[in-house]
Amino acid sequence: MILIGERINAGFKDIGRAIQGKDKGPVQEWARRQAAAGASYLDVNIGAVSKDPRDMVWLVQMVQEAVPTPISVDSTQPEVLRAGLEVLDGRPVLINSTTADDGRLARVVPLAVEFHASLLGLAMDERGSPPDVARRVENGAKIFAAAVEAGLSPDQVFLDPILMPIRFMQDQGPRVLETIREFTLFSDPPLHISVGLSNICSEAKERKLLARTFVVMAVTMGLDAAICNVLDEDLRAAVATAELVLNREIYTDDYLRAFQLKAEGTAGEETRRGR
Amino acid sequence: MILIGERINAGFKDIGRAIQGKDKGPVQEWARRQAAAGASYLDVNIGAVSKDPRDMVWLVQMVQEAVPTPISVDSTQPEVLRAGLEVLDGRPVLINSTTADDGRLARVVPLAVEFHASLLGLAMDERGSPPDVARRVENGAKIFAAAVEAGLSPDQVFLDPILMPIRFMQDQGPRVLETIREFTLFSDPPLHISVGLSNICSEAKERKLLARTFVVMAVTMGLDAAICNVLDEDLRAAVATAELVLNREIYTDDYLRAFQLKAEGTAGEETRRGR
Repeated sequence: MILIGERINAGFKDIGRAIQGKDKGPVQEWARRQAAAGASYLDVNIGAVSKDPRDMVWLVQMVQEAVPTPISVDSTQPEVLRAGLEVLDGRPVLINSTTADDGRLARVVPLAVEFHASLLGLAMDERGSPPDVARRVENGAKIFAAAVEAGLSPDQVFLDPILMPIRFMQDQGPRVLETIREFTLFSDPPLHISVGLSNICSEAKERKLLARTFVVMAVTMGLDAAICNVLDEDLRAAVATAELVLNREIYTDDYLRAFQLKAEGTAGEETRRGR
Repeated sequence: MILIGERINAGFKDIGRAIQGKDKGPVQEWARRQAAAGASYLDVNIGAVSKDPRDMVWLVQMVQEAVPTPISVDSTQPEVLRAGLEVLDGRPVLINSTTADDGRLARVVPLAVEFHASLLGLAMDERGSPPDVARRVENGAKIFAAAVEAGLSPDQVFLDPILMPIRFMQDQGPRVLETIREFTLFSDPPLHISVGLSNICSEAKERKLLARTFVVMAVTMGLDAAICNVLDEDLRAAVATAELVLNREIYTDDYLRAFQLKAEGTAGEETRRGR
C-alpha cells in the first residue's frame, strides 16, 4: 500500500503560516514525523495561501533537506508543478494532479514525461466532479490513455475516483467503490488507484473511524494508494490487516510490526516495485 | 446487518459447565448481555459437551425464559436440531446448519419447512471444506436450490462460504471474499450471506482487529450476517460505518448511536424484513 502523507499542505494553518514566514521548522517537523511513520510519499502543497511558484520551490527544498522520502508535488497550477519538479534532487516523484480536462492534460502529462514522474489523475473534467460511475470511468480512461500514449508505464499512473464527504453526498460512497473496481480492469500490469481519504470525513464526527473503515472497503475493491493521515496508527493497522486478508503479506503474529518496519525501510520503493 | 451472538456455545467453558450442571445463571446472563448489545439472533449450541437432545431443550428454554430475541438452533445433529425447534415459543428461528451433503440436506431442509425456520447452509460437503471458490459456489448453489425447491423463500436462506483461520490458511481469505460476491448473484430478492467471524482469528494475535477488518471487507462484497462477538463495540462501530458508506443507513453525526438503538429495538425483525 502506498501511503502519501497529507500534512504538508498550506490548508493546515501551521503550514500556511510557515510558508508565509519562510519558517522551515513546522515543515521539516511534519516531514520527519510522516517519514518516520512510513509514508511512501510526502505530499507538498502551497494551497490557496500562494500561487507563487517560488513558494513551491522553497517548500520542496525544505522537505528534501529534512528527509529522503519521495515527494508528491501537489498543485492545480502547471507552472507551480514545474517549479517544484525543477528543484527535485532525483528522488522518485509523483505529480499531483491532472484532470481529464484537455487543456490540463496537454500541459501536465508532458511534465510527467520530462521529469520521469508518476502522475496522479483525478477522474473529473471541465464540468467538475462526476456524480456517477460512468463519467468517472470515462475520465479515468481518458487520463490513463493520454499518459500511456505519452510514454508513461501503467505503474506510473495513479487514478483517483474522487471521494466525496459522506456527510453531504452519502450516495457517492458505493459509486466510488464501484469506480475503483472498474479502474482495476484498465490495465495489466496494474495502474495505481488512490483516494484523498480525508475527503470522506469532511465535517463529520467519527473522522478516524470513517477513514479507516472506508480505506479497508476500498482496498477490498482494488485501491492500493491513499493520501491520508499517515500518523493515524489505527488506520495503518487497518490497512496492514486488509493486506493480510488479501494474502499480499505473509501472516506472522507480529504482522503489524512487520508492516511498520517494511513501511519505514522501503518508503518510496513502492513506486518502483508496483503494488 | 444481522448479528448472531456466538456466546451461548458449550465450546466456552462457562457454558459447558452450565449445561452439565443445569445452572441457568451464566446462560441467561449471556443471553441478556448479547440481547442488550443488539444481537438479531442468539446462537445456541450444546457443542461437544453433549449429544443429548434434552440438553438442547434445556438450553433453548433457559434462553427463551430470559429474552425475546430470536434463536439460532445450532447443531450438526438433526435430532438435536429438532429437539430445540420443538420447544420454541413461536419467535423467529434460524437452523444452524446444514451442509451440501445429500443425506444432511434430506434431513435438515424438511425441518426448516416444518418449523417455518430460516436455514443456514455451510458451503461444504461430505468431502469437507472446499479449498477453492468453485466448489464453495457449487455447494452453496446446491443448498440454495434444495431449500427453495422445498418451499423456503430466498430470504430464509443463509449461505456461509466457510471462513478459515488466517494463521493457518491465509490463502483462503481472498477466496472467501470472492465466494461472497458469487453468492450475491444467486438470487434477487437476495438471500443472506453469513460467516462464523471468529474463525478467521483462531489462534491469532490481534483477534479483534482481524475480525472487524475482515467483516468490513466481507460487507463490501455482499455479506449481511455474521455469527460473532456482538459485545465487541469496535466491531459494531465498524459494521455500522460500512453500512453507512454503502448508503444503507442515513448519515447523522450520531449514526453510531442510531445504529445501536435500531439494533436493540428491532432485534429479530431483520429476518422478516430481509437486508
